Amino acid sequence: MTSRRDFLALTGVSALAVAVGPVDADAAEAPRAPAPNPNDKYLPVRTLNGWTLPYKMKNGVKEFHLVAEELEHEFAPGSRATCWGYNGSTPGPTIEAVEGDRVRILVTNRLKEHTTIHWHGILLPSGMDGVGGLNQPQIGPDETFAYEFTLKQHGSHMYHPHADETTQLAVGMMGMFIIHPKNGETVPIDRDYCFLLHNWALHPGTYRPDPSIMVDFDLWTFNSKVFPAIEPVVARTGERVRIRMANLSMWNHPIHMHGVQYQVTGSDGGRWPQSQWRAETTEIVGVGQIRDIEFIAVPGDWAFHCHMSHHTMNAMGHEIPNTLGVDQSGIDEEIKKMLPGFMSMGRYGMAEHQEHTDMGHHPGPENTLAMMTGKGPYGNIEMGGMFTTVKVRDDLKRGDYRDPGWYDAPKGTVAARVSSDPSFGNPPRRA
Amino acid sequence: MTSRRDFLALTGVSALAVAVGPVDADAAEAPRAPAPNPNDKYLPVRTLNGWTLPYKMKNGVKEFHLVAEELEHEFAPGSRATCWGYNGSTPGPTIEAVEGDRVRILVTNRLKEHTTIHWHGILLPSGMDGVGGLNQPQIGPDETFAYEFTLKQHGSHMYHPHADETTQLAVGMMGMFIIHPKNGETVPIDRDYCFLLHNWALHPGTYRPDPSIMVDFDLWTFNSKVFPAIEPVVARTGERVRIRMANLSMWNHPIHMHGVQYQVTGSDGGRWPQSQWRAETTEIVGVGQIRDIEFIAVPGDWAFHCHMSHHTMNAMGHEIPNTLGVDQSGIDEEIKKMLPGFMSMGRYGMAEHQEHTDMGHHPGPENTLAMMTGKGPYGNIEMGGMFTTVKVRDDLKRGDYRDPGWYDAPKGTVAARVSSDPSFGNPPRRA
Amino acid sequence: MTSRRDFLALTGVSALAVAVGPVDADAAEAPRAPAPNPNDKYLPVRTLNGWTLPYKMKNGVKEFHLVAEELEHEFAPGSRATCWGYNGSTPGPTIEAVEGDRVRILVTNRLKEHTTIHWHGILLPSGMDGVGGLNQPQIGPDETFAYEFTLKQHGSHMYHPHADETTQLAVGMMGMFIIHPKNGETVPIDRDYCFLLHNWALHPGTYRPDPSIMVDFDLWTFNSKVFPAIEPVVARTGERVRIRMANLSMWNHPIHMHGVQYQVTGSDGGRWPQSQWRAETTEIVGVGQIRDIEFIAVPGDWAFHCHMSHHTMNAMGHEIPNTLGVDQSGIDEEIKKMLPGFMSMGRYGMAEHQEHTDMGHHPGPENTLAMMTGKGPYGNIEMGGMFTTVKVRDDLKRGDYRDPGWYDAPKGTVAARVSSDPSFGNPPRRA
Repeated sequence: MTSRRDFLALTGVSALAVAVGPVDADAAEAPRAPAPNPNDKYLPVRTLNGWTLPYKMKNGVKEFHLVAEELEHEFAPGSRATCWGYNGSTPGPTIEAVEGDRVRILVTNRLKEHTTIHWHGILLPSGMDGVGGLNQPQIGPDETFAYEFTLKQHGSHMYHPHADETTQLAVGMMGMFIIHPKNGETVPIDRDYCFLLHNWALHPGTYRPDPSIMVDFDLWTFNSKVFPAIEPVVARTGERVRIRMANLSMWNHPIHMHGVQYQVTGSDGGRWPQSQWRAETTEIVGVGQIRDIEFIAVPGDWAFHCHMSHHTMNAMGHEIPNTLGVDQSGIDEEIKKMLPGFMSMGRYGMAEHQEHTDMGHHPGPENTLAMMTGKGPYGNIEMGGMFTTVKVRDDLKRGDYRDPGWYDAPKGTVAARVSSDPSFGNPPRRA
Repeated sequence: MTSRRDFLALTGVSALAVAVGPVDADAAEAPRAPAPNPNDKYLPVRTLNGWTLPYKMKNGVKEFHLVAEELEHEFAPGSRATCWGYNGSTPGPTIEAVEGDRVRILVTNRLKEHTTIHWHGILLPSGMDGVGGLNQPQIGPDETFAYEFTLKQHGSHMYHPHADETTQLAVGMMGMFIIHPKNGETVPIDRDYCFLLHNWALHPGTYRPDPSIMVDFDLWTFNSKVFPAIEPVVARTGERVRIRMANLSMWNHPIHMHGVQYQVTGSDGGRWPQSQWRAETTEIVGVGQIRDIEFIAVPGDWAFHCHMSHHTMNAMGHEIPNTLGVDQSGIDEEIKKMLPGFMSMGRYGMAEHQEHTDMGHHPGPENTLAMMTGKGPYGNIEMGGMFTTVKVRDDLKRGDYRDPGWYDAPKGTVAARVSSDPSFGNPPRRA
Repeated sequence: MTSRRDFLALTGVSALAVAVGPVDADAAEAPRAPAPNPNDKYLPVRTLNGWTLPYKMKNGVKEFHLVAEELEHEFAPGSRATCWGYNGSTPGPTIEAVEGDRVRILVTNRLKEHTTIHWHGILLPSGMDGVGGLNQPQIGPDETFAYEFTLKQHGSHMYHPHADETTQLAVGMMGMFIIHPKNGETVPIDRDYCFLLHNWALHPGTYRPDPSIMVDFDLWTFNSKVFPAIEPVVARTGERVRIRMANLSMWNHPIHMHGVQYQVTGSDGGRWPQSQWRAETTEIVGVGQIRDIEFIAVPGDWAFHCHMSHHTMNAMGHEIPNTLGVDQSGIDEEIKKMLPGFMSMGRYGMAEHQEHTDMGHHPGPENTLAMMTGKGPYGNIEMGGMFTTVKVRDDLKRGDYRDPGWYDAPKGTVAARVSSDPSFGNPPRRA
């Protein structure tokens, strides 16, 4: 059951404002994008807010090393938690390799309970499939196991535990496993992004995700981040962009992109034949599914988000009376006696919450984000959770993933005010 | 969290019976289907329980005018609420135009908080995309903004706010935007219907939808109506019928049609090539998705509904003890002392709820529909929510959308009783 | 609302261990797979844990007889309930027939309330479609009705009530209706499996599913069974296997298979043209949908399950404090004074729950399964609910569906320990 409503009462609504604005991508660039091996011919994937795991060549085998461990994670400034992940991050680093490669993945378990890794979607021997108890013994605390297999396919895949799975997923153990085609892409890709959808029961005022929640979560994330801490998808006008979206949450999320009709081109079952590519603007990415989408970039700043409206906001109060349409003016004065600076809200809608939060009213529980947040070039964006932007510009260099700032829309192409008179015009009404 | 169970206790179950039977479509015809402009060559779409917004030609531009406002809405006789919508209705009127048209849409905001409109699925300049703060300034109370763009596509689309989106969607702000193909349909359509799926947290006994509910809603609607107030889909035998289904709720709804295998032919990403049309009897319409289905009409009265069984009923009691199989006879007498006319229910199933409600027992909370309702030619239909019928007759005139009454099944084609002896026959049993 | 958390408190977590290991399929073989009529040329479908309903030929009509009735059902040893079903089982027996057949289905109602049967996905006269009140009178208690129609199609379909549908589905009334093609399969199938997805609000300590629950269920089943009581899918290496998955629950379940990329080849809308077969490893089976998947069997023991992690476990405690990371050592001693043998759990994860349950600690509420259970060749599998295995061996006889035991993986193909030193290696970390 949700606890989203617990903290939203007459006396306080939402909380710490989140620093917004363009991310300085340069600062994070070095550690997350290791220099590719000169022998690697493929276009590296860009993991939103994430990184790719370096490997070592050992006698013709690419050897990777994952470490399962507890870590401190920040969802956005103002919200952090003790999570579990790999090599210091949730999601863990993306593994990239090439069809035909022999790979060895060492998995060291620095948790206090056993774990395993399942290589979701990858064709391999039964004993390498990673279901603890069924395919292999559990990897106990302190132990390191080796998985080794040859990649017989290419496409978008995942890795995650198959041991105490509900808990270990709930606290952040997951990553992506991208296999590039041996003979290159049939339709060349200019930018290749990936991220994982997830949900977190980080109850307001707490610092550990609660693994017992099944339906009603507090935070909805792309790669364990919420808006506006999620990096934008950046591209140059006319480039072919692929986004690989994987889901290890508890909801089937419909992911919507503004500005284009994208093609759905493949899944964790592989890249589909071109005759099956399907035009959509919203695609459901089911739990345990991956969906690859591709589009030709169109200039502008385009919203890109889950279309479930509660998943593009942060923890919202539930289980309090509905204040919509309620005159709270009397109550207001009473509460002010106890809480100077208090202002009642919600009579005419919730948009004012973001305004008041920014003004410092209504401090909420600690470690809890504002319900709606984010500032754009035209004011409050009033979003959170699974929301980011696709920023397309005419003049970006190939491989430049830095946030280009806000779009400078050509004159006359922005919706604008034509009247401030509410009785303007003669609009038709239903009889 | 739901309050569906709050009012279902031992003393009262469901409430006001809903008037049923064929709708007199004539009465509603005039205001909802404005005479098409003589220059319009397309088959107008039929918005279930809705209407199409008239436009004015201004220097070669089709000018529409939407007004965001608060309004009183009736879900079905016996259930009404203060909602938000456009031009007096929720959903707002359908916008219809033609590929290649230049359109201007004036949006007047008569709400007390700001709003915007996002043109979901439509290809347009970034500044016309309608995300408040990101693409444009918010439309303040009393202000009118103009959106203007040229339609470069055809298909099924939506419009809805992208400002305080969770609240504004929760209380009914949404509409459809149909763009007809410039050169006609490749496969001609005889009847073209559309509607929006939605959910409402209208807690029993209240008159305002609660925007804080994320999962557990009270009312599930087609175009903001519940069965039996939803108009039927009417067609003549052999006609090709298209239904465009859009979803702005918080659930991915699987919509099932009886009697035919329909083809899924397109989405908000456009009409798909014919090689991709997929035969189904149930299609998931994800949140923020549109699905177009097409079928050849077969004579009869066919159920058409969401297949989640709780979504074809109205508010049901939750959080009371399960009465199935419980002998309540002693309690019955005790309660009758306080509530004359009371009858206990639920020991053998819930079907008796509709019967008792019709008899006037168990009045429930005010402004609350019976859990199950509707009467057909053979008795109680025991449905609610997202349920209507497809009524196909051999002798309808083209363009006649009036409810033809109940189907007169040919003799010998109706399931019939062959015995009243429970030990009839010798049915096989699992050993 | 869930009650999954009610019984998981500091004093007790999960309950009765479930007997595991290979099922002796021989014992159950006779009653569930009636000898096919010698005139039947098709490969009979294998209903997981279920059976096929025998028919009688009467003047060229295949006559089936279903009996709607209350029955005692076991989800797995340690969890039983009073359910409703057909002919002694939930799901009811599978009906199998051939395209072109004339079928008559007698339906006897031995419930205390009326019922009907809707033949989901089947093309038939409106009066045979089974919506009570709309298409036919309700079938009263003790009555027998006859449905009769000619099968004009082939594929995977369902049957279920369309009367007091929410209740009657919630307690188990459902079955499959397979129509084999008149002229054989275009791509021959070697093994043909089917099952129904369902959810049950069997609150811990109770014996009747609660029909009022809409979202938060306790048990998630394949053919009304939970792991490890669900039979495995058995096949010989290289065989073409079809699995027909139908969903009459309240969730759209993403079903994942390990080891192969399967093809999605059809639905309750019929078998799709081969150009539309789509490669996946996880397919959402929506409520009221059927999905046929096909794959070439690869040797091994492969997990096959819903990918929502809470649906591969049994009733879990909700609404208690999150114990992850909490030192409970002081509490432990206090509770032991009252409950000798008690051991605190959950500080380092939930995997220890299965271990402790097996050791006899923490007896939970009666009639309640352990949260995680199942033992494999390498130890605890830590699953429940919608989980089973696909067991593929090189040496099975055609038509032998008996559990072959655990897979004997070739030497060197199982993930193995390479170190017990937690500081092993030099794994890269995010800076």
